[in-house]
Amino acid sequence: MAKQIPDIVIGRLPVYLRALQQMKQEGRQVTSSQELGERLGISAAQIRKDLSQFGEFGKQGTGYNIEYLANQVREILKVNRSWDVIIVGAGDIGRALAGYNGFSERGFKIRGIFDNNASLVGSKQGEFTISDSKTMKEVIQTSGIKIAMIAVPAGHAQQVADQLVEAGIRAILSYAPVNLNVPAGVRVQNIDPSIHLQRMTYYLE
Amino acid sequence: MAKQIPDIVIGRLPVYLRALQQMKQEGRQVTSSQELGERLGISAAQIRKDLSQFGEFGKQGTGYNIEYLANQVREILKVNRSWDVIIVGAGDIGRALAGYNGFSERGFKIRGIFDNNASLVGSKQGEFTISDSKTMKEVIQTSGIKIAMIAVPAGHAQQVADQLVEAGIRAILSYAPVNLNVPAGVRVQNIDPSIHLQRMTYYLE
Repeated sequence: MAKQIPDIVIGRLPVYLRALQQMKQEGRQVTSSQELGERLGISAAQIRKDLSQFGEFGKQGTGYNIEYLANQVREILKVNRSWDVIIVGAGDIGRALAGYNGFSERGFKIRGIFDNNASLVGSKQGEFTISDSKTMKEVIQTSGIKIAMIAVPAGHAQQVADQLVEAGIRAILSYAPVNLNVPAGVRVQNIDPSIHLQRMTYYLE
Repeated sequence: MAKQIPDIVIGRLPVYLRALQQMKQEGRQVTSSQELGERLGISAAQIRKDLSQFGEFGKQGTGYNIEYLANQVREILKVNRSWDVIIVGAGDIGRALAGYNGFSERGFKIRGIFDNNASLVGSKQGEFTISDSKTMKEVIQTSGIKIAMIAVPAGHAQQVADQLVEAGIRAILSYAPVNLNVPAGVRVQNIDPSIHLQRMTYYLE
């Protein structure tokens, strides 16, 4: 794509996709930017503007075909295929992620869960056997894995991120409540419940 | 505050606060918008502009006093006090949230964890005893709780959200991968790992 799309627009596309998939599950076939906007608390104009960055997906007056638009957004986001993902850390969060069965329909396949705690290594976690972190690098390189989720204590997260990046990981979703430093070309997203809570308290009386 | 601050600015303040707290833990006393920006991947100009919406927190050339700025941001976000929070759903995610000890220093206190599964009710989860969801409304109203975290299956999330709002909850952090409909005046934040992963695949080769 020649033109640079603002990251904030990219960030909204997965939210649109989730709403479209939900509508499809409800048996719906057609929607509008108005309806999408009402569901998501985003203005219809914003949705039209965001989508227009990538092409023409609906006709004036007839709205969007839900399945077609969902497929187009999947293609833009490159989730019209399956990405291998590993989980580092087999505590509560890591286990919740390993057990979550919603990834496959969103474009992701969990390929392994790693921990450095010898008492956990080898034990079963749902369909997975927890692997030794020492084997992580080889698995990443052999399988060409680009995406990892970090669910280790805050104090270990940077060291794990460094190892992952060295092994070839290019996208990290971190549950550790710290800012990770990574080289250019590697993307990080953080999931930190306190950040989300603090964003809402501003508005409370 | 008379003027309306854009929500996207509010959304960055908790991220600044986390970085400031991290610097303080490192024993640092002074920082700059440049340094903060490098840590966070945000431009120094953006950080200065965001903070200037709320006042004058640093002197040209001498930077920001970390503790002072952190306290100011805490006050803006209203997390210079402790907010009571409940957790609904005692599965893997709910238990991880109940066991996470990072809330208190960020302005939150977990006051209870609820589930409608009779086989879980009454069992201990760390320092908490899992309560019956039937008692949720009374606890919320008696204690005047305004914030809840939803960690129930997707199919139950809307129903739980309706109950919470009816009981008086005004801010919901949801781990269920669905868009929740709530009345005006209630805020929702979603934590959905697929959304974050899909935002990064766009940039992968």
